[in-house]
Amino acid sequence: MIHLGIIGTNWITDQFVQAAHETKRYQLVAVYSRKLATAQRFGEKYGDIEYATDLDTFFGLAHMDTVYIASPNSLHFEQAKQGILAGKNVIVEKPAFSTPEEMAEIIELANQQQVLFFEAARNIHEASFSTVAEFLPTRGAILGANFSYMKYSSRYDAVLAGEEPNIFSPHFSGGALADLGVYPIYAAVAWFGKPQDVHYFARKLPTGVDGIGTAVLRYADFDVTIQTGKIADSELRSEIYFEDGTLDLNAVNAIEEAAFYERKTKQTQVLAVSALENPMIEEAQDFADIIENKNDPQQGQRYEEWVELARSVNETVALMRKQAGIVFDADKK
Amino acid sequence: MIHLGIIGTNWITDQFVQAAHETKRYQLVAVYSRKLATAQRFGEKYGDIEYATDLDTFFGLAHMDTVYIASPNSLHFEQAKQGILAGKNVIVEKPAFSTPEEMAEIIELANQQQVLFFEAARNIHEASFSTVAEFLPTRGAILGANFSYMKYSSRYDAVLAGEEPNIFSPHFSGGALADLGVYPIYAAVAWFGKPQDVHYFARKLPTGVDGIGTAVLRYADFDVTIQTGKIADSELRSEIYFEDGTLDLNAVNAIEEAAFYERKTKQTQVLAVSALENPMIEEAQDFADIIENKNDPQQGQRYEEWVELARSVNETVALMRKQAGIVFDADKK
Repeated sequence: MIHLGIIGTNWITDQFVQAAHETKRYQLVAVYSRKLATAQRFGEKYGDIEYATDLDTFFGLAHMDTVYIASPNSLHFEQAKQGILAGKNVIVEKPAFSTPEEMAEIIELANQQQVLFFEAARNIHEASFSTVAEFLPTRGAILGANFSYMKYSSRYDAVLAGEEPNIFSPHFSGGALADLGVYPIYAAVAWFGKPQDVHYFARKLPTGVDGIGTAVLRYADFDVTIQTGKIADSELRSEIYFEDGTLDLNAVNAIEEAAFYERKTKQTQVLAVSALENPMIEEAQDFADIIENKNDPQQGQRYEEWVELARSVNETVALMRKQAGIVFDADKK
Repeated sequence: MIHLGIIGTNWITDQFVQAAHETKRYQLVAVYSRKLATAQRFGEKYGDIEYATDLDTFFGLAHMDTVYIASPNSLHFEQAKQGILAGKNVIVEKPAFSTPEEMAEIIELANQQQVLFFEAARNIHEASFSTVAEFLPTRGAILGANFSYMKYSSRYDAVLAGEEPNIFSPHFSGGALADLGVYPIYAAVAWFGKPQDVHYFARKLPTGVDGIGTAVLRYADFDVTIQTGKIADSELRSEIYFEDGTLDLNAVNAIEEAAFYERKTKQTQVLAVSALENPMIEEAQDFADIIENKNDPQQGQRYEEWVELARSVNETVALMRKQAGIVFDADKK
């Protein structure tokens, strides 16, 4: 049984704990929050939980072996670092870290300390995502792709009222690319590899982060166009173009519809995909596979692939952010 | 009655003649083709037609006042020039001309000769297109847009077989942008004005023209992303993002579905739009309005707007083509 502690007491933390418990491989044992009442309010429904209001106490809990970190983005790095130094595995909600330097330091430190680091990019852990990955090499050459993930954030109302909620703040490493764009970029990098070049066209908000943007990821033989945004709603589907037809996807996260239209035969091949009600169960299972089998070479290889994927996505996003002139506090360290 | 001559004997010419006749304001009087048999085969169903196999004879036909030119793109310029010098109005199928120099010369020459030049960009003449144009200023500020027009061309089969059909040839000013991309660019320039900047990411074919590409048109406050291609099929819809909601369109040409989702009220407002079975009737009507009322100031203003729109689109496309390294024979003149 994995003994889980959590940092963050919002809806996504709750969803992760429920997913983790549903696998029957994790048990929540500790909750950190700056305020005890907040920690208790979050933890009471989960039974016998320890509460901590300072990180030293939290990471000092000996029976906790793995920590899920879902604090504001800019806090992930110091918390993950402290956790790793305390000998804990760390599962860090995406986007795990603000800069390639932070990412590299954490990966190196986790290896040194012989603990595990996971970026919780849930879409790449979906069974549906793997179904698509396995489908790709069965068709003709890829000619291009269009991926979209754009959804209005209710917290943008606060920005319009002159406030600066964390998710729209450069102090907390927020913005459309960091929060939503990272999913289609993960999809592109997981399915096609790290792009050779990238171009990000973003519209910045008064807070300094991007509200909406279009990215073009350039590969040797094709381009992937990505639409993202947190100040508007899009219902656009996603598509991958092949020499011999087009794969239509409802999205590149929570994939629940995938169908290949073959031009020559005019036949549509429907792929067997579905999305779970709790989209974090599959990643929780994947992480548990590694945590419970640290010395299994096959699991070790999967782990290395995810780590290098996280690194490639982080480097890609950092370059895009630089192109768009989005400067985080984390850049100034 | 407008006495119409045509250059080109393919399906699009047929569609235009049928559209023109349906308005009851045009009468086909002459057909040009290099081969008499081809001209006759095309014209016989239209009754009493004159046939010409050389352009001097064709443009010398005194009772023909207006010419529709749908030859391969690279031939438009010399044919339009000859027609204008012979005192004919010229309706030139899109893309009218290969370079801004050609476009400027034709516009100037038509003014000098007091005849009319129209680029047959049919989508901007649709009633549906105007309905959308009128809708735009009724909502909040525009935050962005995504327009798609990508369709596999059966003539690409010939390219794959090592041939070079005109529509995929730089000798004939072909390619995805020239043939299909021009429609969404027309939509963007007509609805939002000429972009301040443009970026075109294209994939070139062995023939030297673009087979598929993504463009980002940058405006003062938002970006328009455009997907086009002739080597793959896309079913992506088009969207315009506003501060207060999203306008969903089935496409930006032959618009037959348009609905605005208002975020605050969660209400969808369906716009009354429909596409005609023959998509060229509306442009034929528009051109006839001008031709029949050359001295009406209001019609003159509409005409000037279309001419300047054609110029802006041509300049935008030329810049995009240059960025993508697509060189036409027409560039070398």
